[in-house]
Amino acid sequence: MLDFSRSAILAEGKLGLLTSKTAACLVRYVPGKVSCIIDSTRRGRSIEDVLGFGGGIPIVGSLDEALVLEPDSLIMGIAPRGGALPDEWRQIVLDAITGGLNIISGLHTMLGEDPGILEAARKRGVEIWDIRRPPVPDGISQGLLRNKTGKVVLTVGSDCRTGKMTVAYELVRALESIGTAATFVPTGQTGILLEGWGVAVDRVPGDFMARVVEDMTLKALNKAGLAVVEGQGSISHPSYSGVALGIIHGCCPDGMILCHDSSRSEIPGFAAAIPSLGELIGMHEMIAAPVFRSRVIGIALATHGMSEAEAAARVAEAEEETGLPATDVIRWGCGKLIRSLQEGLL
Amino acid sequence: MLDFSRSAILAEGKLGLLTSKTAACLVRYVPGKVSCIIDSTRRGRSIEDVLGFGGGIPIVGSLDEALVLEPDSLIMGIAPRGGALPDEWRQIVLDAITGGLNIISGLHTMLGEDPGILEAARKRGVEIWDIRRPPVPDGISQGLLRNKTGKVVLTVGSDCRTGKMTVAYELVRALESIGTAATFVPTGQTGILLEGWGVAVDRVPGDFMARVVEDMTLKALNKAGLAVVEGQGSISHPSYSGVALGIIHGCCPDGMILCHDSSRSEIPGFAAAIPSLGELIGMHEMIAAPVFRSRVIGIALATHGMSEAEAAARVAEAEEETGLPATDVIRWGCGKLIRSLQEGLL
Repeated sequence: MLDFSRSAILAEGKLGLLTSKTAACLVRYVPGKVSCIIDSTRRGRSIEDVLGFGGGIPIVGSLDEALVLEPDSLIMGIAPRGGALPDEWRQIVLDAITGGLNIISGLHTMLGEDPGILEAARKRGVEIWDIRRPPVPDGISQGLLRNKTGKVVLTVGSDCRTGKMTVAYELVRALESIGTAATFVPTGQTGILLEGWGVAVDRVPGDFMARVVEDMTLKALNKAGLAVVEGQGSISHPSYSGVALGIIHGCCPDGMILCHDSSRSEIPGFAAAIPSLGELIGMHEMIAAPVFRSRVIGIALATHGMSEAEAAARVAEAEEETGLPATDVIRWGCGKLIRSLQEGLL
Repeated sequence: MLDFSRSAILAEGKLGLLTSKTAACLVRYVPGKVSCIIDSTRRGRSIEDVLGFGGGIPIVGSLDEALVLEPDSLIMGIAPRGGALPDEWRQIVLDAITGGLNIISGLHTMLGEDPGILEAARKRGVEIWDIRRPPVPDGISQGLLRNKTGKVVLTVGSDCRTGKMTVAYELVRALESIGTAATFVPTGQTGILLEGWGVAVDRVPGDFMARVVEDMTLKALNKAGLAVVEGQGSISHPSYSGVALGIIHGCCPDGMILCHDSSRSEIPGFAAAIPSLGELIGMHEMIAAPVFRSRVIGIALATHGMSEAEAAARVAEAEEETGLPATDVIRWGCGKLIRSLQEGLL
């Protein structure tokens, strides 16, 4: 882990809610730690205009412009499919090192294993934090959470980028605001950046995924009686389903919150239809059950880009279809989900 | 990959069908490549007596006794839970290196990354093959198999060690014996040892599991119109479910064969009840469907340790419960499964 207080975030050509998830979440939740965003294609535009939030954080056109603002670190602000380092970014990373910045990356490509980057960082005396570097657990999951004290809530999704991290993070903040202690369990790079701990489960060898989630959830339950675990991917996603299921069985959730992007009916790039909310609920409860009986207790929709009326209509449809409380936590807060938690679990 | 033709197999204290799966499968399928088994607790017993097969392969009490038989390699014959190198085995490995043997290991602990072992091997000029060392794919699964030509059959299970590898391997041999070309796709250490290619998917980082299975299945389909993929773990297993699901979605099976050990009603060590065969069929078909519509086409029971009459009763019960053909391929061959394949898929 590496601290940062004034980061330049690299999101070249990609700044957006879905296209640069890490950048967008840092701007949303820790704007005071963001010095600027680098995206030459949006240079000079207001970040409020691009993301819908972000205050006065500048969008600059190059690393050189960013360096003028004296950041302490360069954060890779996107997570491209597969997580490799785009070729054109390698030189930017090297230049940032020359400029004296620490490098923080959640890519699958471990920058600290790139001999050129590593040597440059050593020479300049800066650090490299590869967020996704996996721990080496000393064994597989023990199923310890099946007899846990305390409660666990997990966000699950109909796809990637449906708000699982955001909903978990917002829920913990909302619970704390009403005096209910809860701990957020980060399972992906953005959550780890926000919280300063966690493991990117998608990088962990298959056999150990459940174990690292078990370890993190136990740690969280030691801090508060309620752990809110960030899910990853989707059990119906062609590439990421294994990670999603490892997290479900690893954390033994008492309740699951199903996150869905209301604008999506298929998984982009795969032409795979997304099952209905009702089907997804059935699938999640069925697949969780052999390890731990779990219920979906609410629906969290992402409705960005829709009018308020359209978003409200989608929420009403979801409630009608599932019989569960639904909301968009960014528009309307976590009240409905908290009431469902209070009635069902707490 | 490393060739071996006269291996000593280390199974100290563990030689048995379930306790030393790798050793047992090598003895069963490539006895000509097995020089001896090392297990001091069973020294002098006949291997036929311990495993039920194996002809005249000797069980010796120590590495020294094994070296007298002039093996070319030492194979780690067990896969302990979590896959770590038992402390007491480290010295045996070092002594085997001193004795001039190549080392073949499917443990999660990479022997080639142990400085002492590595240095000893270099000095003696022998090789180390860590079967589980994962490849680094250049991206995630592309979902290419959803539009494949050719057919894919996958063995899935109610738990670990239920015969998924054995059934897949037997099925390919049985198909070949009737003139139907098929390719076995090894996804675990034992299958890889038997076939000389493959990837231990449980060692692959979560995001890439489906991708490596996709790659291997495509390769297999290029050789024959029918690929028989070895599944791993179980979608209902507390620790290994993620790997199991990554393989299901990665290979897009047209048909699945459900493997179950008839003597087991719960997952050892977890006190987790194993769902009924009917429930397992429903779970597998439901969880596969969003990516690729797949059906369970047969049941493969492991009935070792039972009388013939009891085994037959279990098969009849399974057929009654599921309406699918059931058998134990070790007792009765693959005929029923092949007929089901021919009727449903080929």
